Amino acid sequence: MPRIEKDFLGELTLEDNELYGIHTKRALKNFSVSSQKIDIDLVRAIVMVKKACAIANFEVGNLDEKIKDAIVFACDEILAGKYTEQFVVDKFQGGAGTSTNMNVNEVIANIALIYLGKKPGEYQYIHPIDHVNMSQSTNDVYPTALRIATIWNVRELSEECAELQKSLQKKEHEFEGVIKAGRTQLQDALPITLGQEFGAYAQAISRDRWRIYKIEERLRVVNLGATAVGTGVNASLKYMFKVIELLRDFTKIGLARSDYLMDATQNADVFVECSGLLKALAVNLSKIANDLRLLSSGPNTGLNEINLPAAQAGSSIMPGKVNPVIPELINTISFQVMSNDVAITLAAQAGQLELNAFLPLIANNLLESLKILKNGIRIFRKQCIDGITANKERCLEFAKKTPSIAAALIDKIGYDKASEIAKKAIAENKEIIEVVKELKILNENEAEALLNPFEFVKFKE
Amino acid sequence: MPRIEKDFLGELTLEDNELYGIHTKRALKNFSVSSQKIDIDLVRAIVMVKKACAIANFEVGNLDEKIKDAIVFACDEILAGKYTEQFVVDKFQGGAGTSTNMNVNEVIANIALIYLGKKPGEYQYIHPIDHVNMSQSTNDVYPTALRIATIWNVRELSEECAELQKSLQKKEHEFEGVIKAGRTQLQDALPITLGQEFGAYAQAISRDRWRIYKIEERLRVVNLGATAVGTGVNASLKYMFKVIELLRDFTKIGLARSDYLMDATQNADVFVECSGLLKALAVNLSKIANDLRLLSSGPNTGLNEINLPAAQAGSSIMPGKVNPVIPELINTISFQVMSNDVAITLAAQAGQLELNAFLPLIANNLLESLKILKNGIRIFRKQCIDGITANKERCLEFAKKTPSIAAALIDKIGYDKASEIAKKAIAENKEIIEVVKELKILNENEAEALLNPFEFVKFKE
Amino acid sequence: MPRIEKDFLGELTLEDNELYGIHTKRALKNFSVSSQKIDIDLVRAIVMVKKACAIANFEVGNLDEKIKDAIVFACDEILAGKYTEQFVVDKFQGGAGTSTNMNVNEVIANIALIYLGKKPGEYQYIHPIDHVNMSQSTNDVYPTALRIATIWNVRELSEECAELQKSLQKKEHEFEGVIKAGRTQLQDALPITLGQEFGAYAQAISRDRWRIYKIEERLRVVNLGATAVGTGVNASLKYMFKVIELLRDFTKIGLARSDYLMDATQNADVFVECSGLLKALAVNLSKIANDLRLLSSGPNTGLNEINLPAAQAGSSIMPGKVNPVIPELINTISFQVMSNDVAITLAAQAGQLELNAFLPLIANNLLESLKILKNGIRIFRKQCIDGITANKERCLEFAKKTPSIAAALIDKIGYDKASEIAKKAIAENKEIIEVVKELKILNENEAEALLNPFEFVKFKE
Amino acid sequence: MPRIEKDFLGELTLEDNELYGIHTKRALKNFSVSSQKIDIDLVRAIVMVKKACAIANFEVGNLDEKIKDAIVFACDEILAGKYTEQFVVDKFQGGAGTSTNMNVNEVIANIALIYLGKKPGEYQYIHPIDHVNMSQSTNDVYPTALRIATIWNVRELSEECAELQKSLQKKEHEFEGVIKAGRTQLQDALPITLGQEFGAYAQAISRDRWRIYKIEERLRVVNLGATAVGTGVNASLKYMFKVIELLRDFTKIGLARSDYLMDATQNADVFVECSGLLKALAVNLSKIANDLRLLSSGPNTGLNEINLPAAQAGSSIMPGKVNPVIPELINTISFQVMSNDVAITLAAQAGQLELNAFLPLIANNLLESLKILKNGIRIFRKQCIDGITANKERCLEFAKKTPSIAAALIDKIGYDKASEIAKKAIAENKEIIEVVKELKILNENEAEALLNPFEFVKFKE
Repeated sequence: MPRIEKDFLGELTLEDNELYGIHTKRALKNFSVSSQKIDIDLVRAIVMVKKACAIANFEVGNLDEKIKDAIVFACDEILAGKYTEQFVVDKFQGGAGTSTNMNVNEVIANIALIYLGKKPGEYQYIHPIDHVNMSQSTNDVYPTALRIATIWNVRELSEECAELQKSLQKKEHEFEGVIKAGRTQLQDALPITLGQEFGAYAQAISRDRWRIYKIEERLRVVNLGATAVGTGVNASLKYMFKVIELLRDFTKIGLARSDYLMDATQNADVFVECSGLLKALAVNLSKIANDLRLLSSGPNTGLNEINLPAAQAGSSIMPGKVNPVIPELINTISFQVMSNDVAITLAAQAGQLELNAFLPLIANNLLESLKILKNGIRIFRKQCIDGITANKERCLEFAKKTPSIAAALIDKIGYDKASEIAKKAIAENKEIIEVVKELKILNENEAEALLNPFEFVKFKE
Repeated sequence: MPRIEKDFLGELTLEDNELYGIHTKRALKNFSVSSQKIDIDLVRAIVMVKKACAIANFEVGNLDEKIKDAIVFACDEILAGKYTEQFVVDKFQGGAGTSTNMNVNEVIANIALIYLGKKPGEYQYIHPIDHVNMSQSTNDVYPTALRIATIWNVRELSEECAELQKSLQKKEHEFEGVIKAGRTQLQDALPITLGQEFGAYAQAISRDRWRIYKIEERLRVVNLGATAVGTGVNASLKYMFKVIELLRDFTKIGLARSDYLMDATQNADVFVECSGLLKALAVNLSKIANDLRLLSSGPNTGLNEINLPAAQAGSSIMPGKVNPVIPELINTISFQVMSNDVAITLAAQAGQLELNAFLPLIANNLLESLKILKNGIRIFRKQCIDGITANKERCLEFAKKTPSIAAALIDKIGYDKASEIAKKAIAENKEIIEVVKELKILNENEAEALLNPFEFVKFKE
Repeated sequence: MPRIEKDFLGELTLEDNELYGIHTKRALKNFSVSSQKIDIDLVRAIVMVKKACAIANFEVGNLDEKIKDAIVFACDEILAGKYTEQFVVDKFQGGAGTSTNMNVNEVIANIALIYLGKKPGEYQYIHPIDHVNMSQSTNDVYPTALRIATIWNVRELSEECAELQKSLQKKEHEFEGVIKAGRTQLQDALPITLGQEFGAYAQAISRDRWRIYKIEERLRVVNLGATAVGTGVNASLKYMFKVIELLRDFTKIGLARSDYLMDATQNADVFVECSGLLKALAVNLSKIANDLRLLSSGPNTGLNEINLPAAQAGSSIMPGKVNPVIPELINTISFQVMSNDVAITLAAQAGQLELNAFLPLIANNLLESLKILKNGIRIFRKQCIDGITANKERCLEFAKKTPSIAAALIDKIGYDKASEIAKKAIAENKEIIEVVKELKILNENEAEALLNPFEFVKFKE
Repeated sequence: MPRIEKDFLGELTLEDNELYGIHTKRALKNFSVSSQKIDIDLVRAIVMVKKACAIANFEVGNLDEKIKDAIVFACDEILAGKYTEQFVVDKFQGGAGTSTNMNVNEVIANIALIYLGKKPGEYQYIHPIDHVNMSQSTNDVYPTALRIATIWNVRELSEECAELQKSLQKKEHEFEGVIKAGRTQLQDALPITLGQEFGAYAQAISRDRWRIYKIEERLRVVNLGATAVGTGVNASLKYMFKVIELLRDFTKIGLARSDYLMDATQNADVFVECSGLLKALAVNLSKIANDLRLLSSGPNTGLNEINLPAAQAGSSIMPGKVNPVIPELINTISFQVMSNDVAITLAAQAGQLELNAFLPLIANNLLESLKILKNGIRIFRKQCIDGITANKERCLEFAKKTPSIAAALIDKIGYDKASEIAKKAIAENKEIIEVVKELKILNENEAEALLNPFEFVKFKE
């Protein structure tokens, strides 16, 4: 039977299957912008905060045991994966997360009420604000939960980077004997090995992994206890110590209370920092994806040095065509991450005085960036990197044909003469060694030794 | 009973409820990046293209009537709103839209097969590529459909701008007698009316409306018939003429075939142009939202010149607080639009040679921008602008108190003397007119006439 | 002999060679941020405004003829190219252009004073504010001048686009017989001509030219006469009509007064719109530059389809290397334009109430974008495009080798059989025609006719 | 007397006062894009690299003592501040820094020649490439020098952040007794002190300082010795060890050679990371600047809680107006830094294979960001922060008037009753305490104790 709920703006009707309440209902009307809901990791993090708060409030004597137990039960149900359909607020919303916080408060209250044998909406027994939100404000709950959800995703992303790095290093070793021409500015350059190229990719990703791993340090400093403006009104110090301790347990994160709660309540620069690191990762991924698309171009009219595993048929009109869709996906994800960074920056700089009202925009974009990177990297590794093979003959052909190999002649015959040989080789589409032999500049043995491409890829004493 | 489908990479099993086929299935595996599917407007636009193509192919003699009828039936079913759950491809994807196009091709083929009494997967009767995709390539279907879906949304957005403009102009008239202080650089400036401020907002939005309205001109030029690279291989001129004509009818858009199909196939600058205009709109909306948040700030410790309608309760800890969540929503949406513009730019500049492989990223971001703007503006108008009221007394108080009113004295007593009076008024927290009377610079009548704030808001002969 | 000037903050000493005054001197101290000065086109536009204002004020009876003549003389001197060293304000500045406006006011006043036989600083005769800035405010002068300077540059840029388009079309014709392989997603695709590729570039640039040409329509609407907040305080309607008329003459631009001066004073969306169009141009330029770098890659280990004119020696270590530095320059410029667009957007959305305090940032970035595009395009055309040559043999080789040519067999032998032939050709590194002949699928004449790459580049009835 | 120089593209004439050579001359023609030259810090860093290379090459036996001495002399002259006018290459350029490197090579060679009593251009004695660029490539010199120049600026910026933090903390203490109303979402919130607000700013800046300080760790890893593609061709290991050691001395930076030179040659993610941190700083600065503009708004029609030192006269038309130009400058700089970050990202993601050709664009934008932040922060501190004063009475008035103070009543009379009192206070424009006394809810002493705003700003046991 539909129930009626009230707030100071009036009354609204809630259906039986709606375990949220009037605040959420208003938010649904106010923010019917997209078809996307708030992120479920963020919901889970808020629920953990609620659970920690309920227990801490009980322990410091603010909350009855029965109510505490009911709230904890409700939280555990949600954390077990139930009721996800009840978190309905649009991901685009005004306010600093109030609607999200209230959605969680109301759902917990109603599940708790049912647990106690009451009906949804009988808030005289368990109240979404008075009990579930006790000693809290959206302004400390939401930033704290966002940091927790971010860390969970950061950890998984860091793991994915580590796996990608390993896969790249496997290719580094697999391709260490594949000699080829380097290219700078897309022009023929000195010989290198294909393995060295994959090694350079692995290095870049390992730097990303480290950076992303380290950002947890700053993210783990939370403002829970700050309540509305950072002064801790309605929250005691005893409660504050307790709640962080509990939350550390629940989240498995080494959370710490900020030394200056007012700062942590109003400033969002740490999310900008985090997004900046994701952007650096996106830059590296995009560069690798671009390289793979170049190196696998053709097969007949391109470079054709490597083969990507075929992910799907490429064209209905061109028989046999297979496109590099996985690297393209990586570019796509990287571009999105780069642009999400702009949204995060815009939101962060728009904070005013004691609060940043645009945290939900930061949450949307930051969590999306983390997730698409995480999933994208896993796909990249499994469905592309791990299956790459080399066209060794083709690579060797290029290694011999790059005119830059004439660099080895400079010591013997000077830069000018070397340049002439390079030009002649290009004009006549020959290898440098052919020209050198032809012009009898070196004897055969000398030439073979000096112009061997493999000689170019090792450091000299 | 599950069926098995084949492509040149192998076989996959499809369930009975899966009306898509093997290409879509592979895409699901390749692109499991987010939980978001492709935009349904884009799907609808592609379906209209398919319908037009089937009929055109029939009319020029490429397609049997029976197959044509079945395809048309399938298209009509989808256009009537059925089968939306079958369009499952992730919005993040590699390839220039191939997976989206194949998802549509396969679903249409299978619905058509059922219509003919066959079973899904019996492609020997109706084939997703040979029949549904006949005379087409993803490379002409997808950009054409994206332009159609964009125009649909552009039209609706333009309408919403017109409505917003009207609402703002209503407020312009309603507030024309509300005199207040202007503020430049947030500092006291010359008097204006509150009505003039809303009039200026209306002007800005009217400019946006016009710009957005005009972009249809360029969006309506499509490359259907270009097939793979713009040379129209596998599509006859007769078919090309026919199909555009039909599509014009179905979409109610004055579509035109590009004079240079290869250009329209590879270049995405028109989407960048379109997004740039959305960004200009976002800039205006964000500025208006910021102003409304400033003008309604307080009520007790802020400017408090206007009252926004209360959208929802603001705080669990601060009794009676109501926050400007609708303007904040508008800022949020505007920031997202500004950042989506970066993704669109990145994708557009990454086109290579005969194709832009990143059109799906453009589609995601452009259609999102259009939709959140459209919905946001409607909410802004109905749940905020239309209900704004003015605090006339408060405004008048400011109009009298702004020291800039001393500007009217310059002609009589010179700039220097006027400055001194302004400084004295500020120091003693008095109105200019009080100081003028006190110092007997003008007689009472003169002072009242000259320093009347209403005299400042009209142009002088 | 150094002179002393005063304002209401105190006194400062000015040297003889400093023809600016105390306001500029303070600005130098306040804004010593970079080593870059304000744009000289902007200065010239402001000077034209000042000249028009002086004459209009004289004609409506506000200004003595002698003072008017002196101001006009000073303006003409500056417009003739003198005194540019006097415009010293840093391009980064707070305020909505006040310091720039005052720099011009002061320099004009002092040149005018010297003309009248007075000394710099004797402002009792000609005053930077009372006379040079008469009936004006920074808030109408600066936006008006910025629009004028923008239009001047827009016109030149539009001309450069037209020239580039012509050069590209010349190459379109020159290369119309150069058959080659198209590439989509960097993979072998259907044959096209090199001429068609350049034709597609020309089309894109022609669209840019048109867009940029049309933006003058909106830029030419100015707010001169609005003075401080858009209400025209201290400016008569008679003066307003007069001054626009004069300014139209001086600038050779069809300027029009805004119908709603308050809007034109506070809103900067037209600059966002303009920058958005420059971004679309940058996207097209960047795409062309990328293509040219790809097509000229090698020569020995890349595509090597075209030759770019050598602009400079490429490497000290690799003999004979020449790099595509001009296309790289174009990418560089395009990237800068894309990022300047973000600064313009940030500045435009930060307007508050009656004014946008961040117009100088818009000016810096918009005028830079216009200038580097203008110069870049000229260099691109003259030092790159005009000198490109084709490697016709190489292109033909690719045209024959692309397996997509098997598409022509679909009608004869079906898609599946065609795919097998394509795969065989790739595996054995043969042309399709060789395989077809080998397998005796068609007789020699049929094969030659059907698989002739030139057949693929024309539309069919 | 003009001299003629040659390269493999032909000959050019150089004037006597041109100490650069033909490569620079060509670059001037190729890249006449803007009027801005390359950054002088970057030039200085390159010169230090050249000096270290010359000595290292001498020590390992590659270079004659006489030539080494001449090169070192030339380097020292430039490092002493001479010859800056000879570094003329446009800051916009194609190539990965080749033109900049050659400009330095040529100027050093010619100064060295003069030192030896030879004439400029007599490169048979000292050659820009063979001697000055010995064992080097642009591809290792330029990235190494960019990292050095970045670190110099990073260190100075970090120092400026420390100074700003100190100034903010001084204000924190100065204003610790200034009680005022907090504001969240611009609406009345709980009381805080003005000191706490400045303390929160100081915390944010201290985080920035730490982040910026730490980035040196990653920037100090250089690729000198990598030469063209990271394989160290033409550079011995002995030389590599030597040269880094010398460079550490000259630069006073703990430089380290990258473990994987090929990675450090091609990847630019560390600059993206660095720019991301600058963006986080810009976000914090912009937020502080916005707050200061809000808090100092008015004085008569705004918040007027604080006074900024007057930096310059504000308006020619509104007597006595002083604008917050220094905070506006900070916003301006911050916006530029945010947009420069986009250019850096675009450049970094555009690297291809063994090299990133767009390092000069990164250099331009990164060094600009560092410098304008450094200078801006110094100005902000000295010309704004240090001189801020508080309007204590005004602040106290707001502290009493904020209806959120009713939060203290919740414990006594419940949330609902507290809300009613808050509404009544707002409606009648009274302080909460007045209403409480009026309604006799508490006795006078209780009310005074409970509603004392100072009680709200301390944590409770």
